[in-house]
Amino acid sequence: MDEVKVIEIKKSVFADNDEDASKLRKELKDKGVYLLNLMSSPGAGKTTTLIGTLQRIKDKLRVAVMEADIDSDVDAVKIRKATGIPSIQLHTGGMCHLDAEMTRQGLDNVALSEVDLVILENVGNLVCPAEFDTGAVRNAMILSVPEGDDKPLKYPLMFSVCDLVLVNKVDVMPYFDFDLDKCREYVRMRNPKARIIPICAKTGEGLDDFADWLLAEVKAWKQN
Amino acid sequence: MDEVKVIEIKKSVFADNDEDASKLRKELKDKGVYLLNLMSSPGAGKTTTLIGTLQRIKDKLRVAVMEADIDSDVDAVKIRKATGIPSIQLHTGGMCHLDAEMTRQGLDNVALSEVDLVILENVGNLVCPAEFDTGAVRNAMILSVPEGDDKPLKYPLMFSVCDLVLVNKVDVMPYFDFDLDKCREYVRMRNPKARIIPICAKTGEGLDDFADWLLAEVKAWKQN
Repeated sequence: MDEVKVIEIKKSVFADNDEDASKLRKELKDKGVYLLNLMSSPGAGKTTTLIGTLQRIKDKLRVAVMEADIDSDVDAVKIRKATGIPSIQLHTGGMCHLDAEMTRQGLDNVALSEVDLVILENVGNLVCPAEFDTGAVRNAMILSVPEGDDKPLKYPLMFSVCDLVLVNKVDVMPYFDFDLDKCREYVRMRNPKARIIPICAKTGEGLDDFADWLLAEVKAWKQN
Repeated sequence: MDEVKVIEIKKSVFADNDEDASKLRKELKDKGVYLLNLMSSPGAGKTTTLIGTLQRIKDKLRVAVMEADIDSDVDAVKIRKATGIPSIQLHTGGMCHLDAEMTRQGLDNVALSEVDLVILENVGNLVCPAEFDTGAVRNAMILSVPEGDDKPLKYPLMFSVCDLVLVNKVDVMPYFDFDLDKCREYVRMRNPKARIIPICAKTGEGLDDFADWLLAEVKAWKQN
C-alpha cells in the first residue's frame, strides 16, 4: 500500500517545447483527460492542499496524481496513504522544472483511459516551472501566507501564467505581515483574470471552492 | 535615500563556471573581501534576516549587499532604508540563479577597496542556485519553519553545498508541524559538517550567533 511507482524522468530532446505541449494537450483532449499543473515554492502546502481537495472530489471524478520532485517519494506516499488515489513519483534528476516531454514520460505511467483528471504537482520552485508549458489545460499555484504578499512583484512570470492562485495558510495570517488585499492587487497586476481563493489546507477552509473550480473545469473540458 | 542602483545582469558566456568561480574567489582573497552567498526559498526571510544581522555587524565590518531578483527593487530599498548600508539590486532578466560571471557583474558596481564583506542575496529558489558556484567563500541558506522539516530530503543539493543553515521563523513553530531535531538529522544526512542556527529574524533571536559566525569567518579569511 505504501509502495508508489517512482519514475526517473530523462532530459527532453525536443527543441520546441511550446509545440510539443500543444500536441500533448490535444492528445489529452481526445482522451477526455484534464491535466492541471500545480506549482508553488517549496513548502507552500501543495501536497496537503491536494489531499484535502482529492477527498472532496474523488467520488465525483476519477483522478490520478503525479508528484514531481528532485528526490524522495514522501509526497506520492502521503497522497496514496491519505486518499487511496493512484499516485506516482517523478524524479527529475536534479532538473528544476518539468516540460511537456517530461510530463509525457510521467503520463505514460498513468492509465489514461481510467481517469478524468490528472494533477501534476510540479517541482517546488517559483521561477523555472513558469517558463515551460507542460501541456496542462490550466496552471494553478499556491502562495502561502508566510512567504509574504509581495511575491507577485518578485516572481512576475509565475503569477502571469497561472489562472488560479490559492493563498494558503490563512490561519496563520495574524502572525505574519500579510495583506490579502495588497496581495490580490499585486496578483491582478500580473494577471487581471486570475481567480484567487484563500484557503487553509490544514483546516479545510476554502477547499470546497477549489474542488468546485476543478469539477467545473473538468466538466467544461470534456464537453467543449 | 530610497534610490538604489539597479543592475541588469547579462547571461554568462563562460563555459566553465567552476573555473571562473575559483578565479573570482582568488581575486576577492587578494582584495581582502569575503563574499557570502545567501540562498533560500521565496519568502523564507533572507532580507529581514540580513537587516537584523547587518545592524549587529555594521560597526565592526564594512559591508555591502547585492540583492538578486528577477524583478523589483523592494529588497535593496528595504536594506538601504533599514541599515544605511550600500545595497545594489541585481536583475537577473528571468534567470533563476547567479553564476560566477553574473556575480562579477554585480561586484563591478561595488567599491571593493572599501568593504570587508559582500553579502549576495541570491534568487529565491532551492534548486538552481545550488548548482552554480558564485565565487563566494561560503554558501549559507535559510530554511523557514513554515516550509517544513523535510526540505533536506527534497532539495538535497542545496543542503549539501551549504556550510550554514539558518532555521528561521522559530517563533511560529507551535503553529506548524516542524520537528527541529528531525530537521537537524535531515540536514546532517546531506552535509554532516553544516552548522545549524535556529533564528527568528522578526524578534532577533539567534541573530547574534549568525553575526558572530560572520565576524569569525571574515577575520579568518583576511588572516589566512
